[in-house]
Amino acid sequence: MSRTNFLSFECPAARALESVGDRWSILILRDAFQGFARFDEFQQNLGVAPNILSQRLKHLTREGLFERRLYCRRPPRHEYVLTAKGLDFYPVAITLIAWGNRHLPPKEVAMRLGDRATGEERQAVVVDAHTRELITPENTTLLPGPAATENTRQHIARVRAMKTSRISHGK
Amino acid sequence: MSRTNFLSFECPAARALESVGDRWSILILRDAFQGFARFDEFQQNLGVAPNILSQRLKHLTREGLFERRLYCRRPPRHEYVLTAKGLDFYPVAITLIAWGNRHLPPKEVAMRLGDRATGEERQAVVVDAHTRELITPENTTLLPGPAATENTRQHIARVRAMKTSRISHGK
Repeated sequence: MSRTNFLSFECPAARALESVGDRWSILILRDAFQGFARFDEFQQNLGVAPNILSQRLKHLTREGLFERRLYCRRPPRHEYVLTAKGLDFYPVAITLIAWGNRHLPPKEVAMRLGDRATGEERQAVVVDAHTRELITPENTTLLPGPAATENTRQHIARVRAMKTSRISHGK
Repeated sequence: MSRTNFLSFECPAARALESVGDRWSILILRDAFQGFARFDEFQQNLGVAPNILSQRLKHLTREGLFERRLYCRRPPRHEYVLTAKGLDFYPVAITLIAWGNRHLPPKEVAMRLGDRATGEERQAVVVDAHTRELITPENTTLLPGPAATENTRQHIARVRAMKTSRISHGK
């Protein structure tokens, strides 16, 4: 089955998913945030097939999340260093880890996020940088950007008019 | 090629990726956060093949992110309502949208996040719920949880000892 190219979507989430690649790419980035940078380090930690790893590292480099840097001349060996764009993916990894843990039975939790200095457990939340208000579906909506087509504008207007009351808060 | 089951990983990010499914699932959730709930609404908005959509909705329901609710008896029609677990995925969608937009040329931005009341653009950041400190790779690390195996403990110890200096901040 051919894979849909999400770059044709106007939605930034779809484009982001296309840019980052797949699930392996997200785990490679997770490892990079912890300080891993070399092929063998990623391979050993992920237990991923070398051809898959090689392909994903190439993709992430092409998309500008990694910069390839020579660390040994003979034999030539490269490491993959996070660029500003790659480093900036960190909040996505953090919210994913937080979500994963929150919905696991507590005794199944194998890794938690902690404050590096104090060792206190961290609870990650997403807030607005200016108002520091928690971002929720109730207080947040979509706005058209400069590249919005007429279709997107209509979609956004329709979404803004929709009630969020169909969202269930129970379980 | 068979798909690796990420549930065997101890890492909460890997397990989260397995639970949510694939890229289509993330876009379905994105639409659900905007108030969409019915098969036809998702299908029309995503332009996804009905069999893929049907499979992803089943997966998300089985994983407890959606609750299936009858809204019409004749013919029987269901809508997919976000559960607490599904709703809780919202911060991941938000950080993904924010990352996508930040790394697009500004004139290619088609949709932005805004404050529903004021229409002001939102800038999403991830902070610690208690200290309100920005969460970064420099100030955050992994801690072992109750289910950590000896392997995971060793991995975490190794990671905590690593310098984060290999992370490049330039590009």
